[in-house]
Amino acid sequence: MAKQEEVILLDFWAGMYGMKVRIALAEKGVSYEYREEDLRNKSQLLLEMNPVHKKVPVLIHNGKPICESSTIVEYIDEVWKDKAPLFPSDTYGKARARFWSDFIDKKIFLIGRNMCMTIGEEQEASRKEFIDCLKLIDGELGEKPYFGGDSFGYLDLSLIPFYSRFHAYKTYGEFNIEQEFPKLFAWAKRCLQNKESVSNSLPDQLKVHGFVQQMRRILGLDHE
Amino acid sequence: MAKQEEVILLDFWAGMYGMKVRIALAEKGVSYEYREEDLRNKSQLLLEMNPVHKKVPVLIHNGKPICESSTIVEYIDEVWKDKAPLFPSDTYGKARARFWSDFIDKKIFLIGRNMCMTIGEEQEASRKEFIDCLKLIDGELGEKPYFGGDSFGYLDLSLIPFYSRFHAYKTYGEFNIEQEFPKLFAWAKRCLQNKESVSNSLPDQLKVHGFVQQMRRILGLDHE
Repeated sequence: MAKQEEVILLDFWAGMYGMKVRIALAEKGVSYEYREEDLRNKSQLLLEMNPVHKKVPVLIHNGKPICESSTIVEYIDEVWKDKAPLFPSDTYGKARARFWSDFIDKKIFLIGRNMCMTIGEEQEASRKEFIDCLKLIDGELGEKPYFGGDSFGYLDLSLIPFYSRFHAYKTYGEFNIEQEFPKLFAWAKRCLQNKESVSNSLPDQLKVHGFVQQMRRILGLDHE
Repeated sequence: MAKQEEVILLDFWAGMYGMKVRIALAEKGVSYEYREEDLRNKSQLLLEMNPVHKKVPVLIHNGKPICESSTIVEYIDEVWKDKAPLFPSDTYGKARARFWSDFIDKKIFLIGRNMCMTIGEEQEASRKEFIDCLKLIDGELGEKPYFGGDSFGYLDLSLIPFYSRFHAYKTYGEFNIEQEFPKLFAWAKRCLQNKESVSNSLPDQLKVHGFVQQMRRILGLDHE
């Protein structure tokens, strides 16, 4: 008796790119097997499924690997297209969502990470850059309840993983998003409160904070 | 009398990302106005149309900007969908094409550039990395005439701009693609010979070579 659908996600709990994929799967109501990866000792399966980048997340659908979070989310949206469409239906809106998602992946996630993982001048530069990026994305949100307009969509899903870092941003980046960007903060709270796909897919902020603390010690930025 | 379609491309002749867009427009038979940008003195229009990255290429379709080459090409494929579909029709093939296109953008184009724009150990490291990347993409081509199979498609379009650099790779990167990767070289020649969309969109290798030479002098790598 062959299974109709076999869906496996190789992921690491604290990674923001993987959170995007978990939210997309939850939005679509797809059942899947979650396999946690030890990034210091990657599984043979991960190395086989993503030989190019050797990174999580990887979605394995009926034995075939899909890599890179944005590509995975687009794939999920196309395969399970009958439920909860993630993209706007118009072509221009779709292009705009793709553009900002790319900006989030390449800028916001990475600069936010740098802000928490550096000290002194380097940290100060990251903080400034982070604020500039958030101003841009805050402008894109405008007065809408969601980036997708009245409902949660691709761009909401793309950015919301950074909620899991808010406590770490405050402690290690000396950056209080609630004070600096109240509209973005309210949007994040709205996503968490109204979308189980989000609240069930994001790890606890204190747990992430502990992870960042551990990383900083490994890098020699802090001491016990 | 309003025009039905107004399509403007802001671009720079030697940029590989813009070449992708030019090929896509040619494949679809879209008429457009080409506006060359002076990257040391960017136009007000470019700064207004792409305030986030301030980079070419930017496609302006009926007054609305679309930025980032991959997003632009997907947009073109969706808007002018009746002619020359660029993506494979199956969802998995599409995801695979997106994955490799991202690899080309982030790895092959940038590492190839580094190989030509550095000297000594740094150049040697870039050359090794470039070869590793080309091995991977060569494996993806396999024995097929095109990445898209029997016909030219999204991934062919994504990689072929690097043909314009072959002469520069040879001179400044000390890397002969014809000798090292004969299958890729034959594929590139095939694209050039069989696709006017490609041969009309790519600048002459010697002209690009001259541009690289000039950049190296500006960077102080070579002298007159």
